[in-house]
Amino acid sequence: YLKDTIGHLHESELGDLLEELENDQRQELVRLMGDAFDYTALTEVDEAIRMSIVDAMPNDKIAQALRELDSDDAVYILEDLDEEDRREVLEKLPFRERIRLRRSLDYPEETAGRRMQTEFVAVPPFWTVGQTIDYMREDEDLPESFAQIFVIDPAFKLLGAVDLDRILRAKRPEKIEDIMHETRHAIPAEMDQEEAAQIIEQYDLLSAAVVDSNDRLVGVLTVDDVIDIVQQEAEEDIRRLGGVGDEELSDKVLRTSRSRVPWLAVNLVTAFLAATVIELFDATIQQIVALAVLMPIVAGMGGNAGSQTMTVTVRALATRNLDFRNSARIIRRELGVGAINGVVFAVLIGTVAGLWFSSVDIGGIIACAMVVNMIVAALAGILIPLTLDRFGADPAVSSAVFVTAVTDVVGFFAFLGLATWWFGVH
Amino acid sequence: YLKDTIGHLHESELGDLLEELENDQRQELVRLMGDAFDYTALTEVDEAIRMSIVDAMPNDKIAQALRELDSDDAVYILEDLDEEDRREVLEKLPFRERIRLRRSLDYPEETAGRRMQTEFVAVPPFWTVGQTIDYMREDEDLPESFAQIFVIDPAFKLLGAVDLDRILRAKRPEKIEDIMHETRHAIPAEMDQEEAAQIIEQYDLLSAAVVDSNDRLVGVLTVDDVIDIVQQEAEEDIRRLGGVGDEELSDKVLRTSRSRVPWLAVNLVTAFLAATVIELFDATIQQIVALAVLMPIVAGMGGNAGSQTMTVTVRALATRNLDFRNSARIIRRELGVGAINGVVFAVLIGTVAGLWFSSVDIGGIIACAMVVNMIVAALAGILIPLTLDRFGADPAVSSAVFVTAVTDVVGFFAFLGLATWWFGVH
Ligand SMILES: [Mg+2]
Ligand SMILES: [Mg+2]
Ligand SMILES: [Mg+2]
Ligand SMILES: [Mg+2]
Ligand SMILES: [Mg+2]
Ligand SMILES: [Mg+2]
Ligand SMILES: [Mg+2]
Ligand SMILES: [Mg+2]
Ligand SMILES: [Mg+2]
Ligand SMILES: [Mg+2]
Ligand SMILES: [Mg+2]
Ligand SMILES: [Mg+2]
Ligand SMILES: [Mg+2]
Repeated sequence: YLKDTIGHLHESELGDLLEELENDQRQELVRLMGDAFDYTALTEVDEAIRMSIVDAMPNDKIAQALRELDSDDAVYILEDLDEEDRREVLEKLPFRERIRLRRSLDYPEETAGRRMQTEFVAVPPFWTVGQTIDYMREDEDLPESFAQIFVIDPAFKLLGAVDLDRILRAKRPEKIEDIMHETRHAIPAEMDQEEAAQIIEQYDLLSAAVVDSNDRLVGVLTVDDVIDIVQQEAEEDIRRLGGVGDEELSDKVLRTSRSRVPWLAVNLVTAFLAATVIELFDATIQQIVALAVLMPIVAGMGGNAGSQTMTVTVRALATRNLDFRNSARIIRRELGVGAINGVVFAVLIGTVAGLWFSSVDIGGIIACAMVVNMIVAALAGILIPLTLDRFGADPAVSSAVFVTAVTDVVGFFAFLGLATWWFGVH
Repeated sequence: YLKDTIGHLHESELGDLLEELENDQRQELVRLMGDAFDYTALTEVDEAIRMSIVDAMPNDKIAQALRELDSDDAVYILEDLDEEDRREVLEKLPFRERIRLRRSLDYPEETAGRRMQTEFVAVPPFWTVGQTIDYMREDEDLPESFAQIFVIDPAFKLLGAVDLDRILRAKRPEKIEDIMHETRHAIPAEMDQEEAAQIIEQYDLLSAAVVDSNDRLVGVLTVDDVIDIVQQEAEEDIRRLGGVGDEELSDKVLRTSRSRVPWLAVNLVTAFLAATVIELFDATIQQIVALAVLMPIVAGMGGNAGSQTMTVTVRALATRNLDFRNSARIIRRELGVGAINGVVFAVLIGTVAGLWFSSVDIGGIIACAMVVNMIVAALAGILIPLTLDRFGADPAVSSAVFVTAVTDVVGFFAFLGLATWWFGVH
């Protein structure tokens, strides 16, 4: 009964089901389903859930499960195991599979080599279309699905690729080398997954050959995994911009709260920095309390304008739409935007504040401070991510802290400083 | 010379080249290249650039260019034209192409019907694999590339689909209906593109059939366009969270600054709201200026904690990992995280502030206010996006404003209110 209904689920539906269950129910389900359980589903769940299920399985059970999977999915599960378990599981696998998986695991995390699938179809260039089709009809050892076949020389050097629709359109006697296209888009195994995904996205490929440092074909990166990479990288940037680490929805309270502490701690430091700026002017505030009422407006508006510019800059860097050639133009544009919106909101805020406290002086001072802070915000919003990127740091991670630190400090300093100078308080 | 080097560029490379050039150089390039210009490149550039190039072309030139394109790319260009030009261009196209493009344009923007390609391969179920291969070898009218063929009945009703690798593995006499899989994942043409992309992502498809309300096959949504959709939707959410509208990197200063005004204006309103809260306690601030120095810390830390929770919630909603069944658990988790981090940072901030102003009272007051604001921040961070989503609003657009409004108001009110009550100022 259970096997029947659940056995027909797609791996991703089974994954969703696992995520809905409680931890002991998950292990119970895996146990009850036995051989009917599709372990590919483990690649569709959060890391914490995957580890709790895999940890509850004996190593030879894991090895048996991995044999059924595509190599990229097997690697996905293996990379989460601890050193010792991983070695033991690998030893229980047949020789050929073991070296294939080891090779993938030897490439660093988040590279094309780590994400590639080592099952592919490759034929020599002198075969005919007929020979190739006959080979595919007879061979039992083909990957579960494929969209492209590769053309290699005897040393496994990549010569080209043929899309399947090209083969179906060709006549049987045609030579593979005549219909293949030379693969301009072979992906080095050490390439970062994000860059590899960008190549597949840019050239609208269904899959791309992954080659080692000697140009030999070692695997294939498929478009379904590219979608996952694109989603994962965008997700990562959104999280980083929001000050959230690599947490997952299934994480428990303590783990989550710990993962959010670093960002809050950094913000605390910059908040105290801004507080010391305010303290410089405590005499002024004591005389004119309106300044305390209004100062968060100057700092806050600058912070928002800065984070608008920063958001655009960080994404333009991530999608490689921003580089040295056009950075000057974008910096000029953002400065213009900062100046225009600075003046617009300065007039607005100055008028409201002036009326509120019946003081032209206060209106004028807040207006000037706004213009200054909006221009500084624009500069900070673009120069901070550009500089971080230049020095190899991920601009998504740390730009936000620096930008708000700058707009807070400059906002308070400009507003309170101007007021102190104007009203001559000392 | 020019045609030779540029004519060999991939459409996306040509698109990048166009983006690098100045406006008049772009039109010059298109004119010089003549028939060698690949108009698909126009689907790879920013909207403003596409429109400036298309606007400079006479309508019969546009019609001629569109005939060379896949229908989805043609629609991509047509949808940006104004009503009248669009009608004129369509009238210059041959009948069959015209009704195909009209059908796509009749579906609303951002639906599967609008993004689908109307060129596909469809065969009847009783054909054999051999017949099908022969048909593909002879037919001149096949789409430029395809990964799947569809199986339909005489009324164009969708029966199933066969991946190309499945055909290549089958023997010639096998019937198509025996190797096809019934398409469980047909996509209704009215479905939102984001949902359609999620189906293709979830089931790892290379393409999916798009059907009309009578279950008839009208087009195909291909995986390369799905990657673009995934990227576009993630981009949209990042921009909205950062308070940026639908601006593009090529936009000029005025357009950009105008597009950023709404968000700044909304923030201005909430900033003044927070200011009026501060004004309630101006007497207290006048007596104890330390409060003015410290109050941005309470509000700021709450804002950051709230935006952490909000980021996680907005993304979990967008990726459909959060729904009614698990929302109770996530709310409980975020409350726990807020309480724990609230206490941790309350102790830290309380100690530092107490030492700074040599006052146990001030340390205690800021600590209490921090705990309150961090818990409120967690609640706001999850309940605001959930509520917006519940009422059909996009949580990415407006959550951030509401969350910071809540954390500012509550932060100032809790801190200054507590101080006023404790020190008995009136
Ligand atoms: Mg999934
Ligand atoms: Mg992993
Ligand atoms: Mg593309
Ligand atoms: Mg394209
Ligand atoms: Mg895979
Ligand atoms: Mg990244
Ligand atoms: Mg990365
Ligand atoms: Mg595009
Ligand atoms: Mg998938
Ligand atoms: Mg998968
Ligand atoms: Mg397309
Ligand atoms: Mg969306
Ligand atoms: Mg949308």
